[in-house]
Amino acid sequence: MKYCSECGKTVVHRVPEGDNLPRFICEHCDIIHYQNPKLVVGCLPVWNEQVLLCKRAIEPCSGLWTLPAGFMENQESLEEAALRESDEEANANLEIESIYSVISLPHINQIYVLYRAKLLDLDFFAGPESLDVQLFNEEDIPWEKLAFKTIEFTLKRFFEDRKNDHFPVHNTVVSKRNRLGQEID
Amino acid sequence: MKYCSECGKTVVHRVPEGDNLPRFICEHCDIIHYQNPKLVVGCLPVWNEQVLLCKRAIEPCSGLWTLPAGFMENQESLEEAALRESDEEANANLEIESIYSVISLPHINQIYVLYRAKLLDLDFFAGPESLDVQLFNEEDIPWEKLAFKTIEFTLKRFFEDRKNDHFPVHNTVVSKRNRLGQEID
Repeated sequence: MKYCSECGKTVVHRVPEGDNLPRFICEHCDIIHYQNPKLVVGCLPVWNEQVLLCKRAIEPCSGLWTLPAGFMENQESLEEAALRESDEEANANLEIESIYSVISLPHINQIYVLYRAKLLDLDFFAGPESLDVQLFNEEDIPWEKLAFKTIEFTLKRFFEDRKNDHFPVHNTVVSKRNRLGQEID
Repeated sequence: MKYCSECGKTVVHRVPEGDNLPRFICEHCDIIHYQNPKLVVGCLPVWNEQVLLCKRAIEPCSGLWTLPAGFMENQESLEEAALRESDEEANANLEIESIYSVISLPHINQIYVLYRAKLLDLDFFAGPESLDVQLFNEEDIPWEKLAFKTIEFTLKRFFEDRKNDHFPVHNTVVSKRNRLGQEID
């Protein structure tokens, strides 16, 4: 950030009075421009024994497989965001079952929230951000071609939890410091 | 948003090609300035039968009671944000137990994430954003003087769940359309 989005004048980067982190400040408007993590929200769509994955058509990780998920918009709930992204990326008709993984990625300022969801029919097809959408049995998951560690973490937990038909929320941190699978709690 | 934060020129507000929502766009830099919901993260600190509340010293809702919580910063995990806010507002020494409530507030573009936490000692005291910090038994909770519906929702669920010593994650929406207590799942 170089300019104030309210007045167009140059901002400075310093610690405001009473704060302990440097912020972008407009000394003309007297506004502090805070910067905060973004939410990435989506679904783990399930059809009988299979799960639905999307092959990404866009960067990052174009050509690799992922669960339908994307940046949450203003004026929607987490569930609405999860269903919207699944519709946009896979035209998937889903019914949300429960919140399932909540993952912090502090090194890239993102929080993932993924929901388990029941796929209601087989009328899915790739949206503009996907090259392909397919159902996979556990043994056919392309583990080496998954786009993100958050997706690998969520799928691994799901196949474990499915053995017991018990799906608690999994809250973890995926970062450069904390390798995949090291859960906080 | 009126000006591009990268170049200082005026932005326009229109739907970008391939998108379906209006965005602030800088036609000089060719940048789309997305706006996304913010995370408010905090703790429900527990000491034996009591819970810790903070009396707010700042607007909104100055003088009303809340759980220690605030806007998540970049480069931290949800758990780190929850502990940092509890330290800043109540100087509370806590050990996180589990993620507990996840609440969408689409009308104000906020998502609350609150953790159950064990208070480790009684050395808490009000930080600069609090007028007072106190422990409350269930029967003494100032229900009519709570700052936010998210806090009322979380405390009510906690006292119910405590009867069974079982604390599932509560995921809900608090909005103008969906009154307090109407859980999604």
